[in-house]
Amino acid sequence: MQKLIPHLSIRILQQFFVVFAIMFCLHGYAQEHHPNLILTKKGVTDIRKHLGQIPIFDQTLAATKKEVDAEIASGIHVPIPKDMAGGYTHDRHKKNWLILQKAGILYQLLEDEKYAIYVHDVLKAYAAMYPTLPLHPQTRSYARGKIFWQCLNDANWLVYVSQAYDCIYTYLSKQEREYLEKNLFVPYANFLSEGSPQFFNRIHNHSTWGNVAVGMIGLVMNNEKLINNALYGLKSDNIDPNQKDNDGGFIKAKGQKTGFLANLDEPFSPDGYYTEGPYYQRYAMYPFMVFAEALQNVKPELKIFEYKDGVLIKAVYALLNLTKTNGEFFPLNDGQKGMSYYSRELVSAVDIAYHFGGNDASLLSIAKKQNKVQLDDTGLAIALGIQQGKTTEFIKKSIELRDGSDGSEGSVGILRSKDQHLELLMKYTAQGLSHGHYDKLSFSYYNKDTEIFQDYGLARFVNIEQKNGGGYLKENKTWAKQTIAHNTIIQDETSHFGGKFEIGSKHHSEKYLFDSSNPKLQVVSAKDQNAYPDTKLHRTMIMLEDEDFEKPILIDVMQFDSNTIHQFDLPFYYNGQIIDTNFEYITPSSLEVLGNKNGYQHLWLEGKKEFQNDETTQVTWLSKNTFYTLSTIIKAKDEFLFARIGANDPKFNLRRDPSFIVRKPKTKNGAFISVIETHGLYDPVTEIANNAYSNIKGITKFSIQNEKYIAWAIITKKGNTHTFILCTSDTNKKSTHNLSLNGKTYTWSGPYSYTKEN
Amino acid sequence: MQKLIPHLSIRILQQFFVVFAIMFCLHGYAQEHHPNLILTKKGVTDIRKHLGQIPIFDQTLAATKKEVDAEIASGIHVPIPKDMAGGYTHDRHKKNWLILQKAGILYQLLEDEKYAIYVHDVLKAYAAMYPTLPLHPQTRSYARGKIFWQCLNDANWLVYVSQAYDCIYTYLSKQEREYLEKNLFVPYANFLSEGSPQFFNRIHNHSTWGNVAVGMIGLVMNNEKLINNALYGLKSDNIDPNQKDNDGGFIKAKGQKTGFLANLDEPFSPDGYYTEGPYYQRYAMYPFMVFAEALQNVKPELKIFEYKDGVLIKAVYALLNLTKTNGEFFPLNDGQKGMSYYSRELVSAVDIAYHFGGNDASLLSIAKKQNKVQLDDTGLAIALGIQQGKTTEFIKKSIELRDGSDGSEGSVGILRSKDQHLELLMKYTAQGLSHGHYDKLSFSYYNKDTEIFQDYGLARFVNIEQKNGGGYLKENKTWAKQTIAHNTIIQDETSHFGGKFEIGSKHHSEKYLFDSSNPKLQVVSAKDQNAYPDTKLHRTMIMLEDEDFEKPILIDVMQFDSNTIHQFDLPFYYNGQIIDTNFEYITPSSLEVLGNKNGYQHLWLEGKKEFQNDETTQVTWLSKNTFYTLSTIIKAKDEFLFARIGANDPKFNLRRDPSFIVRKPKTKNGAFISVIETHGLYDPVTEIANNAYSNIKGITKFSIQNEKYIAWAIITKKGNTHTFILCTSDTNKKSTHNLSLNGKTYTWSGPYSYTKEN
Repeated sequence: MQKLIPHLSIRILQQFFVVFAIMFCLHGYAQEHHPNLILTKKGVTDIRKHLGQIPIFDQTLAATKKEVDAEIASGIHVPIPKDMAGGYTHDRHKKNWLILQKAGILYQLLEDEKYAIYVHDVLKAYAAMYPTLPLHPQTRSYARGKIFWQCLNDANWLVYVSQAYDCIYTYLSKQEREYLEKNLFVPYANFLSEGSPQFFNRIHNHSTWGNVAVGMIGLVMNNEKLINNALYGLKSDNIDPNQKDNDGGFIKAKGQKTGFLANLDEPFSPDGYYTEGPYYQRYAMYPFMVFAEALQNVKPELKIFEYKDGVLIKAVYALLNLTKTNGEFFPLNDGQKGMSYYSRELVSAVDIAYHFGGNDASLLSIAKKQNKVQLDDTGLAIALGIQQGKTTEFIKKSIELRDGSDGSEGSVGILRSKDQHLELLMKYTAQGLSHGHYDKLSFSYYNKDTEIFQDYGLARFVNIEQKNGGGYLKENKTWAKQTIAHNTIIQDETSHFGGKFEIGSKHHSEKYLFDSSNPKLQVVSAKDQNAYPDTKLHRTMIMLEDEDFEKPILIDVMQFDSNTIHQFDLPFYYNGQIIDTNFEYITPSSLEVLGNKNGYQHLWLEGKKEFQNDETTQVTWLSKNTFYTLSTIIKAKDEFLFARIGANDPKFNLRRDPSFIVRKPKTKNGAFISVIETHGLYDPVTEIANNAYSNIKGITKFSIQNEKYIAWAIITKKGNTHTFILCTSDTNKKSTHNLSLNGKTYTWSGPYSYTKEN
Repeated sequence: MQKLIPHLSIRILQQFFVVFAIMFCLHGYAQEHHPNLILTKKGVTDIRKHLGQIPIFDQTLAATKKEVDAEIASGIHVPIPKDMAGGYTHDRHKKNWLILQKAGILYQLLEDEKYAIYVHDVLKAYAAMYPTLPLHPQTRSYARGKIFWQCLNDANWLVYVSQAYDCIYTYLSKQEREYLEKNLFVPYANFLSEGSPQFFNRIHNHSTWGNVAVGMIGLVMNNEKLINNALYGLKSDNIDPNQKDNDGGFIKAKGQKTGFLANLDEPFSPDGYYTEGPYYQRYAMYPFMVFAEALQNVKPELKIFEYKDGVLIKAVYALLNLTKTNGEFFPLNDGQKGMSYYSRELVSAVDIAYHFGGNDASLLSIAKKQNKVQLDDTGLAIALGIQQGKTTEFIKKSIELRDGSDGSEGSVGILRSKDQHLELLMKYTAQGLSHGHYDKLSFSYYNKDTEIFQDYGLARFVNIEQKNGGGYLKENKTWAKQTIAHNTIIQDETSHFGGKFEIGSKHHSEKYLFDSSNPKLQVVSAKDQNAYPDTKLHRTMIMLEDEDFEKPILIDVMQFDSNTIHQFDLPFYYNGQIIDTNFEYITPSSLEVLGNKNGYQHLWLEGKKEFQNDETTQVTWLSKNTFYTLSTIIKAKDEFLFARIGANDPKFNLRRDPSFIVRKPKTKNGAFISVIETHGLYDPVTEIANNAYSNIKGITKFSIQNEKYIAWAIITKKGNTHTFILCTSDTNKKSTHNLSLNGKTYTWSGPYSYTKEN
């Protein structure tokens, strides 16, 4: 016993010491090291020093102050949650998170207590309400929240509000903090994690928000359990591997790693492409970047910005490259048009990438366009960089971005003309999780901001309450996701993979060739063998710049090879008004749907031509005062259809956009070969139409015995012949080939041959 | 005899003297007084003095030099005429006239002989070709030209080329001038006048061009006969009063005065409104203004700018007021959308109106936007005005512009909101000559540049050769001119006046009331008794600004009163996407045309509702990220149709634009009462939808025994009631009225009563 007592005493003393030490540290930490999450003490000092001398920062700050002051003047509004997205309580709580975060920053930067008081008052109102809040009354979500109809929005709230709390942390007394943490933050974080594993423990942008929400508040409270859950996921969750979310995506595969780091490992490719596409990448970018910034500030030893070979910084560049000239994202998969690098997520991402990614001066040009900054060290760095005249242009070039966590699951390939006006995006990726569309080898094509051939995007009006509460419309599934809604091949009026997510998720297309090394002849080419199990698809798109054409032309070669006979359709979703065709067609006296299912039920047939002979068809249209001509090789029996979206759309949920569809009714194999010219200009003020005609006389496909090659020629009206031969089975640049076409022998090395003759 | 000889001698001497004097004068005149037409000797001296110090002038000059130098470098191109508009020879000769005029100016301002040589060389090429030129081989025009398919373009050519000739007049030797005049200018002017009376001797913009072409070259050559023909028309022409032009307009009524002055008298109203509408007014403005300038320079005694109480200067203001915020003209009648005050005709008109119309500093703001000037005294004045900081804003206000040569043939009434964003144009004019549409009491409505309810404009692609040689398409007659293509009432699916030009030309609508004195409640109201002989129409539109609504609302009250039972339709050509309706409707599984003729054959029926009860229907749509709601009083049996343009359009000549149509199937009299709200904003970057709902709960029409009044109330969701009573037979502001509605007595003076109650 005697031995025991001192032993115990030592243990007790040790414990006392440890507890005391922790308390002391925490106290000191609390007093000395907040803010430390996004704003830092040093950053605040630096910023205060520069205020009034950094226009873009000062402007943002002034706008923020104006906005927050107006809100503070309107009083505190913390209503009992009730509405769907677009409704009052939803929008109000959303506004609260945005304003709280800003008010916290204002307290730090302006040292005006009124902002701290406001944040504290609002947080107290939430803390008073939260402990007794049931699940949100709207039952639509697979993971219902408490403040909002879905956990996702609850997580959004906490990601922002954690920052506000960090900013007023030292302003509050210990008792005040304990009250907030006990009644609001800890139960809130627990609900989002352990309380909602089907939401928290996934590879999905939802989970990223969840992980980051929990991680951020964990960092503020220095709560290791929450931080670890955030980084590495919950250890157990009991999620059924067959369970799906509201979008039809699987919740979680068995044995799948989870947590923030796993969500960096998995959906991001080594090139920084996020498998859901840029619209959702943008959405996820804020939590990814802001938590990375917080981790870098609080746990620099994690070296988060170096994780996976610097994938977070790469992701920002990937996103910027996935925009049109006006900064809007290419609307791949479920992407709402109009979203752009002007979004607050990208302001934040660009600032963080600049500050933590090596101060790349070209990012300053994007920040200049955004004309606002994140109000922290990163925004200060940006503002100073701009003020010091360091800005250089961010030049978007042709680029291939691989998909898949190791980059092996296909890509998006972007070809851009020298002036960056013409932009082709070809998609040969994986499915893109639950937000993916069934559009293997599809493409969209742009002239500056004009969609020459559009990607429809999603069928949804995000946050417009009248349209299904702002959520996905049923036409998203029946139309927008279907293959016929895209500029790619459709066999027997059936979507790729039969439109089945389970099957589509197992496959991806294969890059064949991406070569933008010659700016006058850029090639992207990819294959797919799984969209239709008995059919091999191979699409090659070439952007050719040549003096025969006013602007670069786009060549599209869509090859298909099946064991059995099928109908093949290739749609082109153009915009604008048809100016001319080089063939007669019939237009019906009443409009019927083009088909009965798989999206065809949404198309009206406006016109039709059945060809009796082989020929080159041409159709010229005018869109935003520029002329475009599609020239296509037609074989006898082929059809050219004029279609328009809008059938079976009882709520007018779909745009009435038009389409050309080239149809090969019964065939086993062949190719759709087309050329798209961008030409001329119509000026409605001078009323002069320049270069309103195609320069192409015809396109010819050569008959070749050797299956490994496909060859075609474009003959211009001036009489020049542009001949292309593509080897479809060998991309080695050193391989030499020779082939006889019409008695002439072509010898070349590398995957393709191009010759121009007079 | 003796007496006779000296008498004769004296006469001969006198004649000799006169001839000698004339020759001497002409010689001196020629040597000393050219240029005198548009550029003047004094102007040239002034301009040269300021060159290099007047940015907007210098810029225009530099751009002009660059353009002309490039053309000179490309050689001389005077091909034998062959093509329609949009074809090579047409476009080439059109380019020639523009370049020649500019080259002449450059010769004068830059004193570089190469420009004079170029002009001379090109004119010689024309002079070598002209004498043997037959009529243009294209036979489509009622007045075929020689250089172009229609005299109109030949006249355009001469209006410009006269100026070039004036600029190099003194550079040429007498022999060189005689050669050009004998082989080119005199026969050219004779062909356009005596050789083409059906073109020259009319009240029509065509004739204005013809008159001015002949007058301009007459002034340069000092040829009184040509000048007189230009000013006063041909004395005889033998035109059949039943003859029509290509647009279906009459050539000339018996006894009609003609010539330039008659074309000022007749189609211009005292307010400067040109009866064909702004698109053609813009087109005619150049010859009107430039010839006026020439007359002012050469024959100041005519005081042309004071003619008809200064109508030419008023016309420029009328045109500027007939534009949207972006400077594009309201597309009344046959007007092509996109034409604007940026056109060269308006650059010229604004400059001339500034210089000869009293130096109104607000015109400088328009010139600043145009960012170019006419290279003459007027442009110099503008450039100096801008340089000297005199610019003030040109504020477009609500305005009524009367139609008819004496202002008695109806008007266009334009109501504008205080911020000038919302603009209503109501049309209650005369027919508008051959370019008029059958749309009595129609309206169009704009939010900044967005068309809330569009006027379709014309069915034509001006100068796009593939579309019927750039000329009017047959759908212009079958669709664009028909009443159903407009936002106005249609009885029994028949256009106003049965769509007959002969009848429509005899009538005009009658102004009832135009009052914009109260900026918060502006009213335009007009009647028509002739569109349908057995039916009286009365439309009243009110723009109301009130705190109950985010933006001013538009109230539309379309009354009709017939002796017999008819079907009445009221279409609203909206744009954008339907967000919500407060009623269920059916959508068909295949699309059928709405009717068989009078334009109805071009509409597909996309949806339909037959109402069983009286109610207020509401439909909300989203257009360019703003919400709009149309609320309409519906009576049982009324129908609400969703239609779309595009049926029976085998060449895709028409835009696929949508429409709501409110239909009253069988009734003798009544009213369509509607309210249009402009509200909210959808931001696709923040994805926030603000104020996406209507603020209106319902609209009620009161039953009144007294036929002289109509009364209605708008009830807001907040519970406020806005009550309107309109007296429909007395606009006297001093008349007092009293009326009982639902037991409450309203007493007021003036044509309407408005009260708002909680």
